[in-house]
Amino acid sequence: MPDETLPQPAREEMELVAVLRALGDPARLRLLAAYADGREHGCDQTYLGLEDLHKSTLSHHFRVLREAGVTTTRVAGRNRFVRLRRADLDARFPGLLDAILGGLSG
Amino acid sequence: MPDETLPQPAREEMELVAVLRALGDPARLRLLAAYADGREHGCDQTYLGLEDLHKSTLSHHFRVLREAGVTTTRVAGRNRFVRLRRADLDARFPGLLDAILGGLSG
Repeated sequence: MPDETLPQPAREEMELVAVLRALGDPARLRLLAAYADGREHGCDQTYLGLEDLHKSTLSHHFRVLREAGVTTTRVAGRNRFVRLRRADLDARFPGLLDAILGGLSG
Repeated sequence: MPDETLPQPAREEMELVAVLRALGDPARLRLLAAYADGREHGCDQTYLGLEDLHKSTLSHHFRVLREAGVTTTRVAGRNRFVRLRRADLDARFPGLLDAILGGLSG
């Protein structure tokens, strides 16, 4: 079975308010920081530094990020891999991601 | 009686997550667009283009923006005047405000 990408908005469908709402949450900002390297990440809570969250809460955060267009999720068998949509975000909202990542480290 | 400024975080107390959460709302983004000129604005709903909101809802939005550090509110007698804290936002989170305002008009 080929890998599957979970539903996500196309670049031109991404909405600023949804992106800001998605990132206006401490846990989701921590996820963003983990994804900032642009690589695919598994959903292991310990690795993500989110072992304090309930599994269903974490699933909710993954979905909010994906539905806002912040991340893309690839499903391979029982595994899911999440990656930041940096090119799409940069094209749609120039400077936004860099400003937020800068604010995270500041 | 001298004018009074309502409670607000100092520049160094402003938190990225609070700013993103404050702006991750359609009505508050409309307020931001109105405040983008940097001038003081009264709280007239019609003028702000928010006549569809209940007065208490609008008050809530004003408070969320102020408590996040996005705006400052001056009280003069029975009137309140709201202004964007552009210099503070630009100093604390370089590029963030411009990226959001750019995304609003894009």
